Amino acid sequence: MTGDLDNLRVVLVAARNPLNIGAAARAMSNFGVQHLRVVNPYEVAFREAQSAVGASGLLAKAKQYESVAEAVEDCTLVVGTTVAGARRDLQHRLHRLDEGARAIKRQLKTARVALLFGSERYGLSNRELSHCHWVMRIPTREEHGSMNLGQAVAVCLYELVRGRKTAPAKTPPGRTGPVKKETASATSGDVERLTQLLFSVLGASGYVHPRTAAGTEEKLRRLVRRMELNANDAVMWLGMLRQMAWKLGANKENDV
Amino acid sequence: MTGDLDNLRVVLVAARNPLNIGAAARAMSNFGVQHLRVVNPYEVAFREAQSAVGASGLLAKAKQYESVAEAVEDCTLVVGTTVAGARRDLQHRLHRLDEGARAIKRQLKTARVALLFGSERYGLSNRELSHCHWVMRIPTREEHGSMNLGQAVAVCLYELVRGRKTAPAKTPPGRTGPVKKETASATSGDVERLTQLLFSVLGASGYVHPRTAAGTEEKLRRLVRRMELNANDAVMWLGMLRQMAWKLGANKENDV
Repeated sequence: MTGDLDNLRVVLVAARNPLNIGAAARAMSNFGVQHLRVVNPYEVAFREAQSAVGASGLLAKAKQYESVAEAVEDCTLVVGTTVAGARRDLQHRLHRLDEGARAIKRQLKTARVALLFGSERYGLSNRELSHCHWVMRIPTREEHGSMNLGQAVAVCLYELVRGRKTAPAKTPPGRTGPVKKETASATSGDVERLTQLLFSVLGASGYVHPRTAAGTEEKLRRLVRRMELNANDAVMWLGMLRQMAWKLGANKENDV
Repeated sequence: MTGDLDNLRVVLVAARNPLNIGAAARAMSNFGVQHLRVVNPYEVAFREAQSAVGASGLLAKAKQYESVAEAVEDCTLVVGTTVAGARRDLQHRLHRLDEGARAIKRQLKTARVALLFGSERYGLSNRELSHCHWVMRIPTREEHGSMNLGQAVAVCLYELVRGRKTAPAKTPPGRTGPVKKETASATSGDVERLTQLLFSVLGASGYVHPRTAAGTEEKLRRLVRRMELNANDAVMWLGMLRQMAWKLGANKENDV
């Protein structure tokens, strides 16, 4: 499992408080998760957190990104986090933390997973969430949903290491046949490239209205993620969309 | 369970930092635990935590004691907490957090339980632990045992409410997510219409070679089925592809 956790990326989006960034890093270290990524942190907060006494090495190694897309590019599964009572307008599949963690653990065996946490005040925006395959909910009381960032990270990572056996069983009990080999999932980088190409093609086709372009882009991003493409299918889609884009004369420059 | 949690007393022993006391209170409120007791806190810290803006009502109602004995007097089960790697000299029965939480939940149905957390620096002393029936361990890494107090409280209380039946989704696990879809699946009719439209659009884009057209069509058919579209997404795809087909002048008649 330690090896599996090496595939996990904790992504803090727009964190504003150095204490919270430090607390998230500490929880990660407690539970053996090493890779922290921050997207658009409040600069001073990030610097203060990095220079804080006692901040672990993983904070010093934390990588900084300017967009969620870049921060999750090499991940095949991107999971958002939320709390009970928040975001009643959520447009994503929502899973209980324990169920979601099971799915994440399966994916971590073979590929990188990004776990996203939003800003202290607002959580993850719809635009940020549009990069997620689905969302996991910490079962807080509806009456008191707002949760401390460091505690949210601690609880989610605890659920991922929970029930870990000191000596992991090699063969799952009750399994009679060989494990079916699954094709690797597409990386978020490919999935986002596909999203952008589709957006370009649709723009060139007159499908996208300038006034609602941003909303359409988010809708497309969610639609493409729901396809849960494997790596081969993503390559095939990219090839098809490139051909359409070429035929339509669509390119990055004339995006809506 | 909420009723059961009313029997739980969270006891902070010799906490020194107002932020940590506040964080513990916040985690309690998040998970629906109302009764906080503090033993010999650093006085200033306790007053500051109590007067902190945003501190929940439960901090104002927190009771202060001069000894662990007094703080747990009315409880039938007293459980200490620790982290991995700490306290190798522990003279108590030690349970994993998930196992311990099960026992606590059983007891909470009928009687009061005290859950003890030690000071930030030293944890619970042997003397303080001597009031405990047994000790529960949070599964942190041995190399980094020391855990933030607020996070330790959050993780322990999460384990107590975990699996409570507020489940948003019951459907069994799929490939990367526990639930593939809540919406009805697309009909085969729509899926085939989508396949044909995609084939037309690709034909008009010059993607399909006449010599391999039949093979390409089959490949597309499989690709589209692997998307496991729900009914809404199929409608969206049909709309997008119709627009592309119109722009490209593709139609049934000029299919490859």
